[in-house]
Amino acid sequence: QFSNIGGFTAAKLYEAHSIISDMFLEDNTTFLSFPADIISTGLRGLINDVVKRKLVDVIITTSGTLDHDIARTFGKYYCGSFNYSDVELREININRLGNVLVPDESYGELIEEKVMEQLEKLYSIKKEWATVDLIKEIGLSINNESSILYNAAKNDIPIFVPGITDGSFGSQLWSFYEQHHDFKINLLEDEHRLSDIIFDAKKTGAIMVGGGISKHHTIWWNQFRDGLDYAVYITTAQEYDGSLSGAKLEEAISWKKVRPNARFVNIYGDATVIMPILMAPFL
Amino acid sequence: QFSNIGGFTAAKLYEAHSIISDMFLEDNTTFLSFPADIISTGLRGLINDVVKRKLVDVIITTSGTLDHDIARTFGKYYCGSFNYSDVELREININRLGNVLVPDESYGELIEEKVMEQLEKLYSIKKEWATVDLIKEIGLSINNESSILYNAAKNDIPIFVPGITDGSFGSQLWSFYEQHHDFKINLLEDEHRLSDIIFDAKKTGAIMVGGGISKHHTIWWNQFRDGLDYAVYITTAQEYDGSLSGAKLEEAISWKKVRPNARFVNIYGDATVIMPILMAPFL
Amino acid sequence: QFSNIGGFTAAKLYEAHSIISDMFLEDNTTFLSFPADIISTGLRGLINDVVKRKLVDVIITTSGTLDHDIARTFGKYYCGSFNYSDVELREININRLGNVLVPDESYGELIEEKVMEQLEKLYSIKKEWATVDLIKEIGLSINNESSILYNAAKNDIPIFVPGITDGSFGSQLWSFYEQHHDFKINLLEDEHRLSDIIFDAKKTGAIMVGGGISKHHTIWWNQFRDGLDYAVYITTAQEYDGSLSGAKLEEAISWKKVRPNARFVNIYGDATVIMPILMAPFL
Amino acid sequence: QFSNIGGFTAAKLYEAHSIISDMFLEDNTTFLSFPADIISTGLRGLINDVVKRKLVDVIITTSGTLDHDIARTFGKYYCGSFNYSDVELREININRLGNVLVPDESYGELIEEKVMEQLEKLYSIKKEWATVDLIKEIGLSINNESSILYNAAKNDIPIFVPGITDGSFGSQLWSFYEQHHDFKINLLEDEHRLSDIIFDAKKTGAIMVGGGISKHHTIWWNQFRDGLDYAVYITTAQEYDGSLSGAKLEEAISWKKVRPNARFVNIYGDATVIMPILMAPFL
Ligand SMILES: NC(=O)c1ccc[n+]([C@@H]2O[C@H](COP(=O)([O-])OP(=O)(O)OC[C@H]3O[C@@H](n4cnc5c(N)ncnc54)[C@H](O)[C@@H]3O)[C@@H](O)[C@H]2O)c1
Ligand SMILES: NC(=O)c1ccc[n+]([C@@H]2O[C@H](COP(=O)([O-])OP(=O)(O)OC[C@H]3O[C@@H](n4cnc5c(N)ncnc54)[C@H](O)[C@@H]3O)[C@@H](O)[C@H]2O)c1
Repeated sequence: QFSNIGGFTAAKLYEAHSIISDMFLEDNTTFLSFPADIISTGLRGLINDVVKRKLVDVIITTSGTLDHDIARTFGKYYCGSFNYSDVELREININRLGNVLVPDESYGELIEEKVMEQLEKLYSIKKEWATVDLIKEIGLSINNESSILYNAAKNDIPIFVPGITDGSFGSQLWSFYEQHHDFKINLLEDEHRLSDIIFDAKKTGAIMVGGGISKHHTIWWNQFRDGLDYAVYITTAQEYDGSLSGAKLEEAISWKKVRPNARFVNIYGDATVIMPILMAPFL
Repeated sequence: QFSNIGGFTAAKLYEAHSIISDMFLEDNTTFLSFPADIISTGLRGLINDVVKRKLVDVIITTSGTLDHDIARTFGKYYCGSFNYSDVELREININRLGNVLVPDESYGELIEEKVMEQLEKLYSIKKEWATVDLIKEIGLSINNESSILYNAAKNDIPIFVPGITDGSFGSQLWSFYEQHHDFKINLLEDEHRLSDIIFDAKKTGAIMVGGGISKHHTIWWNQFRDGLDYAVYITTAQEYDGSLSGAKLEEAISWKKVRPNARFVNIYGDATVIMPILMAPFL
Repeated sequence: QFSNIGGFTAAKLYEAHSIISDMFLEDNTTFLSFPADIISTGLRGLINDVVKRKLVDVIITTSGTLDHDIARTFGKYYCGSFNYSDVELREININRLGNVLVPDESYGELIEEKVMEQLEKLYSIKKEWATVDLIKEIGLSINNESSILYNAAKNDIPIFVPGITDGSFGSQLWSFYEQHHDFKINLLEDEHRLSDIIFDAKKTGAIMVGGGISKHHTIWWNQFRDGLDYAVYITTAQEYDGSLSGAKLEEAISWKKVRPNARFVNIYGDATVIMPILMAPFL
Repeated sequence: QFSNIGGFTAAKLYEAHSIISDMFLEDNTTFLSFPADIISTGLRGLINDVVKRKLVDVIITTSGTLDHDIARTFGKYYCGSFNYSDVELREININRLGNVLVPDESYGELIEEKVMEQLEKLYSIKKEWATVDLIKEIGLSINNESSILYNAAKNDIPIFVPGITDGSFGSQLWSFYEQHHDFKINLLEDEHRLSDIIFDAKKTGAIMVGGGISKHHTIWWNQFRDGLDYAVYITTAQEYDGSLSGAKLEEAISWKKVRPNARFVNIYGDATVIMPILMAPFL
């Protein structure tokens, strides 16, 4: 349908579709990166499907993704409005995430319960964990088809979270550490695993949803192999402020994070609209 | 599909769909407003279909819409890239509109030829024209199913262009005026026609694509009947700069341009993506 | 101060400063274009100073500029918040414009009174008016140093408003027309005046605040002399949506609206912050 | 100057000034958070001054801040253009960051040299480091008045980097780890330090430049004391995409990250313009 809209973003969707098709066909190590917020929306289901079908090989995301995935496996979020009064929501213990409503009982309390229980078990096995391994074990323990963590674990898709402490999952780790000072997160081991993936890859491609640390960590590592061969970047951020989030993939060429001959496209728009259009043909 | 994405813009698309459905069902005077740029893309075809099916009653747009509709009926545009060198394009007489390429021969030259020919004829009939009438006559003369102007004329959907002189069509009017100083555009008569439509309407609704003068003229006139009953606003503009384009429909309530109990939604994103999703179910 | 911030927008401010300095020094026809919203803020005072010092030769703006300038000469606006309830504001007859509050009594009612009174007088002189002349006469009648219209009239700086009917001033014209059907706005004569200015200019420069019809009309006319020699564009709009407002000045080179060797810069940000920084050294 | 611009962003700058004044006067624990990109601009100097004068108590930022601060202490960056060809820049080993140019020799190579040297020394002292301590030691070793890391270390302002591995500094840690598998980053200890700061604070305030992990970690920890008392958020991100970066401070109230009675303001714009205006009166 978008092929004959032929202009502006519609034309880019068409291009992105062609890039992703090739990326999936080739013997390519495919990265999927995304920020946490979208896991509070229906995109959680879509990404779960991507993971179930093993369309990607590596996930790089932020701590909030773990929060939302766990929370929504066991609790409920609701659809509200960007205009709700936050002062009133606070009084009834509901957190607002854009127009998504997150009751306390579906979030912090529940994440604490689920994660703490597992940390006890994992700590009894060994005291130092790479986050990628910890996330895999917790993923397996979730044992629920609707969970990205669970399906990623089952399908051996590693989930990297370079900013692991920044969220509720991260706060459980800290809280556990306050009780067990020999409990350690070995985040340099995560980097080691990433280096293995990068240095083993024949070609690499990335679908990057949103900016921030998840995007940067994806392109950062790819610089060690002279850049991505394929890249699709979906964002709402703009270039003029000099931010990493707003930086176009063109800029990444100068940093050797994307190859000069790579196939790539920057798409502007909310991922809750763009991603279903892009991924539907593959699901 | 978007119903169960349930968050951020996807949730709003769902809401917009429900508002538009009701708007189309009711005995409602429906306005469609849009900026010129989208008529250089495939949205021209989509809006043409909307017009053919008489889904809307009134169109308010800008001068460039006339340009692109005429140009593309008789000439060709191409798909390029936002990154093309404008200095080089200039040398080969190609104009760039985002990632759409507009050869001079498909634009200025062609519009001049078509419009001037008709102006001679129309001037021989009478010397003073309301723009809405002039556009209708030129629309009829186009006599081509792919043209929005033609189908709007045939289906008695008036096209209002409050900033008529600002574009190539407008420059033809000026150029004709230089030769015939008694040729007149009676733009206050356009306003009179709009007032008739507004004061006759039982209920009003508007699908507004983009901001600027086309959006404002739509909501401005609706203030004379205490505001729109239904409104969907699609834009990329943001609120913080105080602009009319960035103003949410909420703000229009204070101005009596939208009713306090109206059903309305603001959707952020490129119309080349949003409009096909919103309008497809009705086409 | 911004010279040694040396990066992102700060670096561009520095560049813009140098361009404007040269633009003001040379024998240059200088255009200033802006949307109406900023005239509801303190930028009205700043632009008034620009006009008093004759720093620019031509103004192109939108109908709302006339509204706000007249309203604020005789009435008062207030500072509020983007978050105020528009439903409540409506009940107390206050219109919201971003975080600026516009009481009905300072706006519509007052504009009606002032404009209608003048229209009676002007109509008794002649029945057909170019808008540029009408605005000048009304400007003179305002007779108040705080008014842009007044100072522009006194200093022979023409104010062009290609979308004259779109606002409260415009509605007075329509309303007067309903009572006097031989009252005419000759907007093709406005274009004739612009053509004189363009064809007489040795060099041209433009400071364009915001997009839409005021920006486009400025660059549109400059295409008839192969483009602007100097251009500073301040905007919050983005490129990806294909809009005229978001289009960078680069794009205008392909259209011959800006010369390939012109000195120009695109600056992103709210004009209420950018303009004082840019213009202060000249005031 | 901005006080009488009285509208849109100018009005907010005025409000922010008043909030920051109070924040600095009170017995308040003040957080400053920012993304890395701005440290490639002249804002590095401004933030360095803030640190020298001990205007803030805690810094939360991202790994790239360490990179740019070290790189620019010993190497040079240049001002270029957003339009430079990245393919050509790559060939001459220059990295582009918006319109800032970062030669390889001023970045990766130099950071490697400086950091590796220190890591050897620090590793010989002890094998496990909290990042906040590691950054302090490296800061002290820089021994240069132009360095933020140095002055922060000297003035006992802790710098927290929750996503420490994501950048060149982080890659040195990984690289060192590949040679010394018993070298450890104890990032849970960082969280412990943050918890001490939070639980000791009487009141808290934050100046947050940009979104992402640095903003989130600031508000996240403040939720454990029911929210910030003062907050100024400067961003270019927009609300509609549901992102943490685009989320207004209002939203943070529902999450208890900002108090319902806090004084706060959201300012939209490039920090290279906004920050000098806001901070100049205090420097
Ligand atoms: N957002 C949450 O729900 C949440 C929850 C817990 C923790 N956190 C933490 O906050 C920190 C910052 O969050 P983040 O890095 O995940 O990113 P973020 O939400 O700040 O987003 C980063 C950028 O990605 C883009 N983006 C975000 N949502 C988008 C969308 N729907 N469509 C298109 N583009 C989009 C935006 O340009 C944004 O500036 C992280 O450390 C994270 O763990 C977030
Ligand atoms: N753009 C053209 O092709 C063209 C051609 C000839 C004349 N002109 C003239 O330029 C003037 C200004 O143009 P305009 O008023 O038509 O609007 P514009 O292109 O300036 O757009 C106005 C606003 O609408 C929104 N918008 C535009 N395109 C969008 C999209 N694809 N998706 C979502 N939102 C979008 C943006 O927020 C934008 O700021 C008019 O007088 C017009 O006649 C334009």
